[in-house]
Amino acid sequence: MDETEIYRKQQMGGTIEKGRKSALIIVDFTNGFIDPEIFGGGNTLEAAKATIPLLAAFRRRALPVVFTRIVYAEDGSDTGIWCEKVPRLRELTESNPASHIVDFLAPEAGDLIVNKTQPSAFFDTNLGSVLRAQGVDAVTVAGATTSGCVRATVVDAISANLRPTVVSDCVGDRALGPHEANLFDMKQKYANLVSSTELDEIFA
Amino acid sequence: MDETEIYRKQQMGGTIEKGRKSALIIVDFTNGFIDPEIFGGGNTLEAAKATIPLLAAFRRRALPVVFTRIVYAEDGSDTGIWCEKVPRLRELTESNPASHIVDFLAPEAGDLIVNKTQPSAFFDTNLGSVLRAQGVDAVTVAGATTSGCVRATVVDAISANLRPTVVSDCVGDRALGPHEANLFDMKQKYANLVSSTELDEIFA
Amino acid sequence: MDETEIYRKQQMGGTIEKGRKSALIIVDFTNGFIDPEIFGGGNTLEAAKATIPLLAAFRRRALPVVFTRIVYAEDGSDTGIWCEKVPRLRELTESNPASHIVDFLAPEAGDLIVNKTQPSAFFDTNLGSVLRAQGVDAVTVAGATTSGCVRATVVDAISANLRPTVVSDCVGDRALGPHEANLFDMKQKYANLVSSTELDEIFA
Amino acid sequence: MDETEIYRKQQMGGTIEKGRKSALIIVDFTNGFIDPEIFGGGNTLEAAKATIPLLAAFRRRALPVVFTRIVYAEDGSDTGIWCEKVPRLRELTESNPASHIVDFLAPEAGDLIVNKTQPSAFFDTNLGSVLRAQGVDAVTVAGATTSGCVRATVVDAISANLRPTVVSDCVGDRALGPHEANLFDMKQKYANLVSSTELDEIFA
Repeated sequence: MDETEIYRKQQMGGTIEKGRKSALIIVDFTNGFIDPEIFGGGNTLEAAKATIPLLAAFRRRALPVVFTRIVYAEDGSDTGIWCEKVPRLRELTESNPASHIVDFLAPEAGDLIVNKTQPSAFFDTNLGSVLRAQGVDAVTVAGATTSGCVRATVVDAISANLRPTVVSDCVGDRALGPHEANLFDMKQKYANLVSSTELDEIFA
Repeated sequence: MDETEIYRKQQMGGTIEKGRKSALIIVDFTNGFIDPEIFGGGNTLEAAKATIPLLAAFRRRALPVVFTRIVYAEDGSDTGIWCEKVPRLRELTESNPASHIVDFLAPEAGDLIVNKTQPSAFFDTNLGSVLRAQGVDAVTVAGATTSGCVRATVVDAISANLRPTVVSDCVGDRALGPHEANLFDMKQKYANLVSSTELDEIFA
Repeated sequence: MDETEIYRKQQMGGTIEKGRKSALIIVDFTNGFIDPEIFGGGNTLEAAKATIPLLAAFRRRALPVVFTRIVYAEDGSDTGIWCEKVPRLRELTESNPASHIVDFLAPEAGDLIVNKTQPSAFFDTNLGSVLRAQGVDAVTVAGATTSGCVRATVVDAISANLRPTVVSDCVGDRALGPHEANLFDMKQKYANLVSSTELDEIFA
Repeated sequence: MDETEIYRKQQMGGTIEKGRKSALIIVDFTNGFIDPEIFGGGNTLEAAKATIPLLAAFRRRALPVVFTRIVYAEDGSDTGIWCEKVPRLRELTESNPASHIVDFLAPEAGDLIVNKTQPSAFFDTNLGSVLRAQGVDAVTVAGATTSGCVRATVVDAISANLRPTVVSDCVGDRALGPHEANLFDMKQKYANLVSSTELDEIFA
């Protein structure tokens, strides 16, 4: 019995019903998560480029758009244990271009910009509360990295009873093994997976 | 360049300093997560058995012990989107032995029992607050599944600035591919990994 | 200039728009918060009685109903700092009738029962997540005490972007001064205030 | 029986044990909460001035100092229901001096600055997590307003099992009735109350 069969037998990997209103969450598509010399590489640039038409599709429908970034205080006053495990995170301050959103996915007025210090876009931020005010019941997730902040955001989304969809070609990672392994986990347990050409699977 | 090399080059996988006081969190070692006909199988029974001496080591030092369980209301009033993805979760109610902790890891008076409806032991529970009252700054994590509730708990622990250690032979999963993939992710990004024989790595 | 005038001049006390779907939250109408020898007295019994027809109005419309209770573990494993300030809270365990909901407001199948260890019904509980799954965007609050768990619940509700309405004759307190002072604060800053005869102000 | 007697009889108003390490939280002492034409007036200026030596006492002991501010995005993308109740909150953006900390309480490098969109300094912010990383188990609270963000912060602090002390002459409000009523509630239920001359009551 191969491993997928185990999941099938335990009736995992069900389909989450489409929501009435989805927000697009673009996780950490900042310069530092594209650049292979910092936290990027792998398929992150390709995934960020694939997000351009996805973002346009959300804008055409006037649906909420959220960008997240990791940003620590210049004086390090809000760093924590994660920065022991991954020391270069401390470099991601407002003054460092590595923390800036890539210029080809520029936010517009009205987009929510979530600055965060932890993997999940929801942890210790007001993202969940703002989405509630907007009547959002589903989230569509793009960004980097699949095995890091994307997954943490997806797990928190479903935990908060938001319906998560991961756009598989719009999420990227520095290394493809963890990228694939985390797509598998999310598909089995936490999200619907679609490609960016399957917009019918996203919009009500 | 292999994938581990990418992580090394980006200076990930650092060592988290040992805390002053660690709590043991035993995640979802319930009958249902051992039984291969429900949510268990793979190496979950072996991992649960390996947790017996680990638990004894925490008890000898009078350190806090936490057990978590997934428990939904009998009438389904608190189920949510996760139960669309994994429908059999709804069966885990108080009256179902599948939600009961395995008898060879029996809680004692003074242990914290966290009933939860989501993957992470911290999400929508008072675990973080109770650990704060106990002066805990680190958590040692055992349980099931490695790719599910263990990982979600570890990500929330480090996000909350608790120092996570995963005991690699005391966490188990229904399938070994995801088990290994998630140990890799956690070691690179979220936790120290030790085996249950390396108690010096856990205790101050 | 009297104090109400200060609030008026600063444009506080606005009206919150009615939501599309309101849940009724009945906060801590347990025996212990009615009994003047425990935590009750004042107008708490009268407020609990006034909640009977309010509850019926929610049931007729098939809107969500939530009951909250303070319940600590029998072994005290989840008590905290609040129990230093108010030591008799520790007595509120499952086996103590003081923690049981008053019999004239009996929950029915499908109602959400939130057991909590802190003042707010939202703090460290899954209430916010469950209400999200139900498409709730507003909460109507009854219960005890006005100056304690009711207010804490209302402040968390508006902070989470749920639209709070307090039913002034369905909230009660052990002492009338704090009851009135907290109704004033909530009206100025956190909630719409209505009486239980003004159902048009609650339902869409 | 007067109202204080009711509280005494129910054994409320206990003393919370001093913690090992307290952080100072200065809540919303921004220009807008001093100015009587915006959200200030009453005794807020006096309270802010009284906070100067309190802040100095924390700095002398090298204890953590936190400043909070209400700050909304310039484009209003993160406003919510609170801004319906209190419409002028929307004006508190980064470019408005009303959201800036008063110059006589200037933050220094290493202080934590918490930007928030809700009453409590803990709600949807990383304050609780950062204090955990610093080994803090108690908070000393100054700021404005007593009946608003100070109280919300204190209730969340005790709920998170941090030991709260309110410095009664270092908290202020636009109107003295609510100021006094909320000091009473906090003393009975959520915090120790001290004056700024009683530093022995704060420091270990």
